[in-house]
Amino acid sequence: MNTEKAAQNLGLNLEFLEAAIKRRTFSSEKHDGQEYLRLRHRTKHLEKGTVYFPEANETVRGFPKIRRVLCLKTGLEKHFTEFSAEEKMDGYNVRIAKIGTEIIALTRGGLVCPYSTFHANTKEVRDFLKENPTKVICAEFAGPLNPHVPHEYEGVDSIDFFAFDIREKNTNKPMPVKERIALLDKFGLKKARFYGIYTPKDYEKVKAILLELDKKGKEGLVLKDTNMSLQVKYTTANSTRGDLSYAFKYPFEFAVEFMFRRIIREGFAANEFKDTPEQLKERARKLGESILLPMAETIAQVSKGNKVFEENTVLDDESIGGLLASLEESGVKVDLEKADGKVKIKRHHPETNDRIKAYLAGDFCGE
Amino acid sequence: MNTEKAAQNLGLNLEFLEAAIKRRTFSSEKHDGQEYLRLRHRTKHLEKGTVYFPEANETVRGFPKIRRVLCLKTGLEKHFTEFSAEEKMDGYNVRIAKIGTEIIALTRGGLVCPYSTFHANTKEVRDFLKENPTKVICAEFAGPLNPHVPHEYEGVDSIDFFAFDIREKNTNKPMPVKERIALLDKFGLKKARFYGIYTPKDYEKVKAILLELDKKGKEGLVLKDTNMSLQVKYTTANSTRGDLSYAFKYPFEFAVEFMFRRIIREGFAANEFKDTPEQLKERARKLGESILLPMAETIAQVSKGNKVFEENTVLDDESIGGLLASLEESGVKVDLEKADGKVKIKRHHPETNDRIKAYLAGDFCGE
Repeated sequence: MNTEKAAQNLGLNLEFLEAAIKRRTFSSEKHDGQEYLRLRHRTKHLEKGTVYFPEANETVRGFPKIRRVLCLKTGLEKHFTEFSAEEKMDGYNVRIAKIGTEIIALTRGGLVCPYSTFHANTKEVRDFLKENPTKVICAEFAGPLNPHVPHEYEGVDSIDFFAFDIREKNTNKPMPVKERIALLDKFGLKKARFYGIYTPKDYEKVKAILLELDKKGKEGLVLKDTNMSLQVKYTTANSTRGDLSYAFKYPFEFAVEFMFRRIIREGFAANEFKDTPEQLKERARKLGESILLPMAETIAQVSKGNKVFEENTVLDDESIGGLLASLEESGVKVDLEKADGKVKIKRHHPETNDRIKAYLAGDFCGE
Repeated sequence: MNTEKAAQNLGLNLEFLEAAIKRRTFSSEKHDGQEYLRLRHRTKHLEKGTVYFPEANETVRGFPKIRRVLCLKTGLEKHFTEFSAEEKMDGYNVRIAKIGTEIIALTRGGLVCPYSTFHANTKEVRDFLKENPTKVICAEFAGPLNPHVPHEYEGVDSIDFFAFDIREKNTNKPMPVKERIALLDKFGLKKARFYGIYTPKDYEKVKAILLELDKKGKEGLVLKDTNMSLQVKYTTANSTRGDLSYAFKYPFEFAVEFMFRRIIREGFAANEFKDTPEQLKERARKLGESILLPMAETIAQVSKGNKVFEENTVLDDESIGGLLASLEESGVKVDLEKADGKVKIKRHHPETNDRIKAYLAGDFCGE
């Protein structure tokens, strides 16, 4: 690799880049036999997940972190004058770009995802990127046949993707909201649901959308300054409980902060939605159930001698070999079952199985 | 201080001790103008909270950690042949010993506690330590007028202490269970409730005691090998929920692990007590309420512009000056209100107040 060219393209000092490659801040990855660099931690002006392709001499910048507010009303007042409200979908974040002649899809972390790459190669995307080769389509891959975050979506039978942002490859400059909506519509690209443009005075309207999303079991909203200078997320109680259920199903697999942050959100949600004492009790009951029921079920399974797995189903198409290889590379141990053009992927959660088994056998817990 | 003498008494190498004092593993403390050493972390054979008094040239070893099982039945089978079951009271752990001519009470961390020292100076203790000067009485200070863990106890109006262990000063050798019970009774010292001697086959009896303790709002049991080679604790759902309520009342004040460990316990309790689906839902509801209700109340208070405090009431006696000084020294900021021979101590929880205030103002949360 010509690191001098890479450094220039990435806007980094040559020595700095070479040192970063050495200490694996930039890791060297391969896609179709072609080497590329992936940035594993935020460094200088570059976001985590930034990727550099030497052959094309092009950079796709990492998707920026969207910050969260715990209080909607004051959050809107503090951060916005005019903003769009767009659905935050519960899938995984992918960046789709044309590198040389090829269309690729990158995960949030900056790996080329073979499954997403295969499914992103649609006529709409090809047309869009042909006319806009310097642009990156940021999209959520969602649907039940999803290797990472399987979730039912109305109108999505297997897996599909929904654009929510358009950015420039090297600068990461986002397209203003209205322009983006128009451009996506022009090429017939599906969008994450767009709820319109608001000002902080429209708080009650935004709250009503959130309550509707909550009722439908959806994740929440991303609120975007219309000139895209700021994006803020606010999520539903339903999404919070879903995350907690997932985490407590495999209680020893995740960082404890993952659970804690979500529990805290419900305290602030009770305040935001002005819960009556009855509503608060109902929220408490649901919170408790989202935590305890999956955990108790997992413990019951292990006590019966069963192993607990996380099960996702994906389409058994051309991309499957690459998907499995990339899961393996990222250290996930999986078992597979193929049937009916689908592949069931069972992910192991060894820490959960082992620790529950030990505690059930009377072991001391590590306190 | 003669560090050579100290090292010999503590069973440490002189250079090691001097280095440990230098890096403040042993901190130098004062009580009534007299210097003593306090061990702040477990080191070599010495428990955290071990204390050395230079004038008397005596060591009081730290109270050993009692390990926890999450599963009672298998825990009994795995660890015991014959054991006593004794109530684990919800107060604070104190070691009472005679140093020179004075009776002192040490906290778990190894500080002389003026309040406990004052209240431990009873005729029964004086008689006991006169006849047994090499022994340490390990006791739980419990009751509503308690500076650390206020909790109602039947028959305790203000504060009282209950012995649960007798150990040798320098070796920390515990007295076997039956001998201890007899000796405490001989001197008329109050004991933590003693439920008798059992074998693992008595599981159902032990479980019944726990359910009874749970119903009465008590903390749980400590199970002790009759020769005191091992102690194990098992606590009630009531105690778990009490801890969670306390922690979530000041959600940003504690290590997240504190909450997580307690939530996990309820998963295993559901298994231990073979919850029916209805009982499991009831357990979930109570768990959710113990988490959400105090947190929501605190957020509501802060949103009204109030500050949240932790309030304890103690007796306004001779020891109060020393107690307040020791709270201050340990970095706790307090406000006081005196009335009717009592002192109300309001403890500040700045992290909780500040962070909730910031989030309520629309600040991003730190994710």
